[in-house]
Amino acid sequence: MARTNNHNDHDTRNLQENLQQVVHLLSKHRLVEGFVKMQETPRYELVNSLVHKQNLAELQNLLDKLHPADIAYILEALPLKERLMIWDLVKADRDGEILLETSDSVRETLIAAMNSGELVAATGQLDADEIADLAPDLPRNVLNDLFQTLPTEEREQLRSAMSYPEDAVGALMDFDMVTIRKEVTLEVVLRYLRRLEELPDQTDQLFVVDRDERLMGVLPVNLLLVNNPDTKVSAMMSTKMVKLHPDDKAQQATHVFERYNLITAPVVDMNDKLLGRVTVNAAMDFNREKSENKALNLAGLSEEEDLFAPVWKSVKNRWVWLAINLITAFIASRVIGAFEGSIEKLVALAALMPIIAGIGGNSGNQTITMIVRAIALGQLNASKANKLFAKEIVVSAVNGIICGSAAGLFAFLIYHSISLSVVVTMAMALNLLLAALLGVLIPLTLHKLGRDPAKGSSVIITAITDSGGFFIFLGLATILLL
Amino acid sequence: MARTNNHNDHDTRNLQENLQQVVHLLSKHRLVEGFVKMQETPRYELVNSLVHKQNLAELQNLLDKLHPADIAYILEALPLKERLMIWDLVKADRDGEILLETSDSVRETLIAAMNSGELVAATGQLDADEIADLAPDLPRNVLNDLFQTLPTEEREQLRSAMSYPEDAVGALMDFDMVTIRKEVTLEVVLRYLRRLEELPDQTDQLFVVDRDERLMGVLPVNLLLVNNPDTKVSAMMSTKMVKLHPDDKAQQATHVFERYNLITAPVVDMNDKLLGRVTVNAAMDFNREKSENKALNLAGLSEEEDLFAPVWKSVKNRWVWLAINLITAFIASRVIGAFEGSIEKLVALAALMPIIAGIGGNSGNQTITMIVRAIALGQLNASKANKLFAKEIVVSAVNGIICGSAAGLFAFLIYHSISLSVVVTMAMALNLLLAALLGVLIPLTLHKLGRDPAKGSSVIITAITDSGGFFIFLGLATILLL
Repeated sequence: MARTNNHNDHDTRNLQENLQQVVHLLSKHRLVEGFVKMQETPRYELVNSLVHKQNLAELQNLLDKLHPADIAYILEALPLKERLMIWDLVKADRDGEILLETSDSVRETLIAAMNSGELVAATGQLDADEIADLAPDLPRNVLNDLFQTLPTEEREQLRSAMSYPEDAVGALMDFDMVTIRKEVTLEVVLRYLRRLEELPDQTDQLFVVDRDERLMGVLPVNLLLVNNPDTKVSAMMSTKMVKLHPDDKAQQATHVFERYNLITAPVVDMNDKLLGRVTVNAAMDFNREKSENKALNLAGLSEEEDLFAPVWKSVKNRWVWLAINLITAFIASRVIGAFEGSIEKLVALAALMPIIAGIGGNSGNQTITMIVRAIALGQLNASKANKLFAKEIVVSAVNGIICGSAAGLFAFLIYHSISLSVVVTMAMALNLLLAALLGVLIPLTLHKLGRDPAKGSSVIITAITDSGGFFIFLGLATILLL
Repeated sequence: MARTNNHNDHDTRNLQENLQQVVHLLSKHRLVEGFVKMQETPRYELVNSLVHKQNLAELQNLLDKLHPADIAYILEALPLKERLMIWDLVKADRDGEILLETSDSVRETLIAAMNSGELVAATGQLDADEIADLAPDLPRNVLNDLFQTLPTEEREQLRSAMSYPEDAVGALMDFDMVTIRKEVTLEVVLRYLRRLEELPDQTDQLFVVDRDERLMGVLPVNLLLVNNPDTKVSAMMSTKMVKLHPDDKAQQATHVFERYNLITAPVVDMNDKLLGRVTVNAAMDFNREKSENKALNLAGLSEEEDLFAPVWKSVKNRWVWLAINLITAFIASRVIGAFEGSIEKLVALAALMPIIAGIGGNSGNQTITMIVRAIALGQLNASKANKLFAKEIVVSAVNGIICGSAAGLFAFLIYHSISLSVVVTMAMALNLLLAALLGVLIPLTLHKLGRDPAKGSSVIITAITDSGGFFIFLGLATILLL
């Protein structure tokens, strides 16, 4: 029933000191200079070939002692050539656990440097849920070979783990759990655990199941320690527990971990049959990746980029966003084009129009950020949307009057025309109202259509406040001034 | 030595069902309609006053069973009036733990509704580290009263916890740890734990200290379960562990949790004296807050905003950012103003100039996102910065040629002038080069000055690519076309 992560056996406890030493060595090799707090280290003369060899052996020795996550970190920080040199120094039987820790883009470069045999050997030692994490990056034939070598139970687990989309609880799930029966005493449980010799990482609770593997309750490990061994499991177990389903959104599961301060949570199917568990660390990793991707997406980078990726890959990664923005810019340009006659008559309009468009975009994005956050927290519904709507309108009306007055004053100081400065003020206020209106409507609409309101909202609102701002300002000026 | 979180005693396990029921009741009261998956619930007729009273009692009963985090969630989702009504229904002895779970802005509204006596009573039951979390929001006199009522040990803990800045490990630390001596056997430890009756939440390891409270090692609780009770602690304990210092950046500590999959980590002073511990849940909460703040800051919202905050508060929260942007827009406007003569002669320039400025801002922000991320991961240093520099320049040169050609083609199709479209292409390429240059330099410089490169970089680059874009385009046009 219980499986342990043997590959996590080596001392996972702090090898920060060793990391420093590797960094030191690496700096001798001029690989990683000034890595971690090493800015003060003087540059070393190029070591002669004998010392060089000597140090490579020492380096390998130190790498062996490093936590796989630290090795992954070093690999990610190195340019390709040096990265592959370190990768070669790493013991083959640790390749799998290190691949698990690297970012997708760096993992690609490492896998590309390995042949099929090495890949099968490296990944074969991993747990089924871990193989599933690597699977998208593995060549098809390696994956087939892997399937052949796995024992039946793990093969089933791998198939199940691979069947869930990346953002489902099923994809975060592992199978390292200890299950017990409720009829036995704590004494029996303790004896059973002792026979296991080692518990899976992050075992904070045991799962109580019936004959059909249905989850009946959970028994926190700490209760085993403080309670009378003669007590029955059924008397101690908690039956009110958070249960996750493999098809739940992973994002929601991580909220559960945050909200209830959990370490692990069981995953069950429709019939309450225990399928696996999710650990807080898996949830935390998911969160980190998610928030990193969000930051990248905001800037229009479609995925994390290996710092040392070839130029054409970087261009491709950034091109979609620039293309979209080019198109919206072309549209804005045509809006201005429609008023060329007005600009020719009053060239000050050309100088003032970017102010109105720009502030509209900024204000609209503020509103969107608020609304997207409320949607993500599930704090928004139809009746409250109306209230928020009203509030955002008022807030932007106030901001519009303040910003508009500032811009109007600016226009007056430069161009000494009261009517022009009135038009600036009016256009600014109107554009900020437009921004507030759409800042609420766009994310709510995207959400209603079942799309992620965090994606796209910002591009759309900026496009509209740009073109809209130009149109409102130039239009008003044409009507009122010319 | 051991203290437990008594206020977490009540069943923290899933009360999701109860939450549903409260939501159901709330929806009858027309408080929270369509809250969680409740969109399908039909609206209920207004209940008569008798039923109304009946339901309030039932509601209170259900609230008592809810996890404090769930109550906090409900409070945050409600407009002020309804929020305070629910707050009144909550048992007074749970006020403290609920305040801990609410967001800062909502906490303010709740604290404002309580008198000093209630606040002292509510917070007096919390642990020292928890009081420290609330302290910034508590009135001065309440804090003084609290100090008086606390036992000496806790008073010291509170003083210590309050002495660290919000982003230091010391501020994440709690004091709920179990310490043991290395000379004893596991049997003795087991007997000791049994006497405690309950272990603090998230106790995955015991801390082995000497007579002077110096940390000698850690003993994972799971080892207690599977090993022979006659074994000495000294034989089982791990001496290589992650040790945090209270002055460490909290951000770095959370990286340690992510990297090594830890549940708890000890905090020690310079002399290795054990001060407290940090749990993975504290790290996770810190992460969430940090990433939420980042999203808010990106949009220029200085702090999380209560969805139902009064208008003037929202205006204030958003005003700084708009003011900064107004100033940069005024500068850009003056740059255009300097070329009014050119625009008068060739009005097409006015329509084309926003394209060059806008794409420059987008491209610059992409570069900044990459660099800020590399800095945050500690993957950047002087020698690598040069490589990245070179790469970003090449990437943006390529993007500049592509975007520039597209914009040039656009200009040609509209205005049928080859020389104009050549100027557009050149200006775009130059502005994208400027964006790449500054996209690397700005965050690196901010970082070197000891400032957070994530803050401000985006405003600065957008300001420069706007003004710079206008200047480059209009300048080139003036020289080459007029």
